[in-house]
Amino acid sequence: MPREILFNAFAMNTAGHLSPGQWRNPRDRSGAYNRLRTWTDLAVTLERGLFDGLFIADVIGVYDVYGSGPAGALRNAAQLPINDPMMLVSAMAHVTQHLGFGVTANLTWTSPFLLARAFSTLDHLTEGRIGWNIVTGYLDSGARAHGLNGLIAHDDRYAMAEEYMEVCYKLWEGSWEDGAAVRDPATGVFADPARVHTIKHEGKHYRLDAIHSCEPSPQRTPLLYQAGTSAAGRGFAARHAECVFVSGPNAEVIQRRTQELRAAVAEAGRDPADLKVFSLLTVVVAGTHTEAEDRHAEALRYASPEGSLTLMAGWTGLDLSGYALDQEIRYIEKEGYRTMLENITRADPDRAWTVRDVAEHCAVGAIGPVVVGDAKGAADAVEDWMERTGVDGLNLAYAVLPETFEAIADHLVPELQRRGRYKDAYTSGTMRAKLYGRDRLQAPHPAAGFRAG
Amino acid sequence: MPREILFNAFAMNTAGHLSPGQWRNPRDRSGAYNRLRTWTDLAVTLERGLFDGLFIADVIGVYDVYGSGPAGALRNAAQLPINDPMMLVSAMAHVTQHLGFGVTANLTWTSPFLLARAFSTLDHLTEGRIGWNIVTGYLDSGARAHGLNGLIAHDDRYAMAEEYMEVCYKLWEGSWEDGAAVRDPATGVFADPARVHTIKHEGKHYRLDAIHSCEPSPQRTPLLYQAGTSAAGRGFAARHAECVFVSGPNAEVIQRRTQELRAAVAEAGRDPADLKVFSLLTVVVAGTHTEAEDRHAEALRYASPEGSLTLMAGWTGLDLSGYALDQEIRYIEKEGYRTMLENITRADPDRAWTVRDVAEHCAVGAIGPVVVGDAKGAADAVEDWMERTGVDGLNLAYAVLPETFEAIADHLVPELQRRGRYKDAYTSGTMRAKLYGRDRLQAPHPAAGFRAG
Repeated sequence: MPREILFNAFAMNTAGHLSPGQWRNPRDRSGAYNRLRTWTDLAVTLERGLFDGLFIADVIGVYDVYGSGPAGALRNAAQLPINDPMMLVSAMAHVTQHLGFGVTANLTWTSPFLLARAFSTLDHLTEGRIGWNIVTGYLDSGARAHGLNGLIAHDDRYAMAEEYMEVCYKLWEGSWEDGAAVRDPATGVFADPARVHTIKHEGKHYRLDAIHSCEPSPQRTPLLYQAGTSAAGRGFAARHAECVFVSGPNAEVIQRRTQELRAAVAEAGRDPADLKVFSLLTVVVAGTHTEAEDRHAEALRYASPEGSLTLMAGWTGLDLSGYALDQEIRYIEKEGYRTMLENITRADPDRAWTVRDVAEHCAVGAIGPVVVGDAKGAADAVEDWMERTGVDGLNLAYAVLPETFEAIADHLVPELQRRGRYKDAYTSGTMRAKLYGRDRLQAPHPAAGFRAG
Repeated sequence: MPREILFNAFAMNTAGHLSPGQWRNPRDRSGAYNRLRTWTDLAVTLERGLFDGLFIADVIGVYDVYGSGPAGALRNAAQLPINDPMMLVSAMAHVTQHLGFGVTANLTWTSPFLLARAFSTLDHLTEGRIGWNIVTGYLDSGARAHGLNGLIAHDDRYAMAEEYMEVCYKLWEGSWEDGAAVRDPATGVFADPARVHTIKHEGKHYRLDAIHSCEPSPQRTPLLYQAGTSAAGRGFAARHAECVFVSGPNAEVIQRRTQELRAAVAEAGRDPADLKVFSLLTVVVAGTHTEAEDRHAEALRYASPEGSLTLMAGWTGLDLSGYALDQEIRYIEKEGYRTMLENITRADPDRAWTVRDVAEHCAVGAIGPVVVGDAKGAADAVEDWMERTGVDGLNLAYAVLPETFEAIADHLVPELQRRGRYKDAYTSGTMRAKLYGRDRLQAPHPAAGFRAG
């Protein structure tokens, strides 16, 4: 019996996100990313579609690798301007009851004390519907925004992240015992000092001597997301993550990464079933196949190839701005980029791919595949994708906001429900309870080892 | 013609705020500070009462001076637990149209790049209804939560704050020119790179090389609040603040501080009218004088003297836990405390004040005066207070949340409206426009000097 498919909507507090250029599309509202209504309406739509969560990406810094400057990012709104994702949550929580929120926060530039407080606050306010997508950053410009000359080396970032998690777990799990906030009007005691512990941490990167600011929230530690696909990132995910986000150009790549992740989780002593894998996919669905194709063609007309190249340069560190858009990519000799390009062009190996072709191919939904079809066609493609990749759910990017998600709620979800592949209603409880049947992390997850009392 | 009186509601993302112990009062909802509904309902109430703003205090760390440990704060919920105030804003903005939000944020532990992004985001989402209460912290425990052994010296903190403001102004005012985000579908240009500037700052305390993440928001720099009453704090306020918050036990103290602040603003080359002074006051009003007295008496019954002493110890650094509650304070020989106690006991100089008396006196509304009366009596007292202090508005603490504010909206506001001392409707526009008739800071305020283009 095939399992129900999990749906995350994938967005960012910016215009276009993975589909740069759509702000010019009259059907698109992502250009109004800075209006609160855009987000509360989106949250209501997602809850109507019984989405498990809204996953909000983030980046600290500017994509300035392409053309060695920020012009490409600015002209094309390639994830710039970008606003703080955390500030969106409480308004969306107010207009929903079940939708989860996976918020990206970079641990490199925020103290564990304050980050732990922010997430505990959101876990309280959302009644346990908050997740943290743990990132360490990948843009030099983010480091320069913090007074450094460039990024801390990748593996060092993960060593810091490892210690950072320990500090957070101590605060979230170890500072306040369950029931420490007795709130007893008879004795006048709000919290029992004997059951609240000062955390003293003296590590290589972090030092802290404090009580966690917040009483225990429904989940304590937020649901932990991670997206690393590097070796260091995979090891980190294997130890800490409850959900991972993988992206890649085709099912084979995703399947391999998914298997590697599950193996790494087992190697870390955890049950591989305690990791949900979400893969990037864009679904353009409509009442008829023709209508869906028209929508996709329209999105491609508004797509910005330069915006797409700007994003890819930021992700890979390799700049194609020196090549003409008509340059055939098979003649481009750039090592790292080549691998990525080969993955992309595998979609049609016989075509003479130019730089422009690649850019346009990635300009809607980035390097993830795009499914176009009516309800039946899209559901077939999604089921096939699930089968071939072995993932648990989809991180659904949008071509056009919120249209892509409205159409999924209206067409794809009912069809998957008919097929028994999608929930008919939310179950109650926290984000973690909905996925794993429990509110709190449990052993052998390392967080559980820091629990007090 | 007396001016209209400005009203800020004063609260904190914690139970009780300045009235510790009220979480035991069945009429109080401040114990549900961690529920979103508490805040959205409060915002709706405040907008019904045409409050200018909700001012949300914050503190980083624990009040652990009293009794040399956190037990007093924990037992009495003396501003512990405390959640992040910034996370509340978007939900409250969603349910209101005019109410402003003055959010406290400590600049010591957050990078200027990220703090500037957070406030720009909130300025966008609230459509210009955000203010920043600039603080540098006063608790050693907040420093220990960040790996230090104790606070940075007070005057050094203000020197750092001065440079921090410069960096923020550069980001908010100098990075994006007006109109840089052209959003031109015809040319496909979202932002014109020629009108977006990289900020390079190399200072004593901060270093940054970055474009501000956010396109210009309605106010750019949020409305600036400050609460310092020290010499360094006053100089800082004189240069930067548009609103200041003063507290004190009686009108004479407030009047003097207000005059000093206005003189300091003039000395800094600014128009003294460009500073609005808000003073702390608690108003317990009801349909009849007797009913108001009953409400106040009830609040006093639930007040926590130990909680009050815990807060005062944190503010002053002086610990009265070694004294019996029945100890007459006239025999206590502690220098700094003595001044404060004398200010408090001036309310009734002939009484033989004990430690308990002082604690109880401050347990509802802290060291600010408490007005108790029916609509007419409360309005008389408020008008008299305004006359004697010369302040522009009130920072209204609550005894019981949200009852104190509901009663003000129901009884005090209509009476002040009848007297022509309170607006009958909001004016349109941003928080700054409502107070000063302009969206942006203007010269000679230092922020204006960093504007580009």
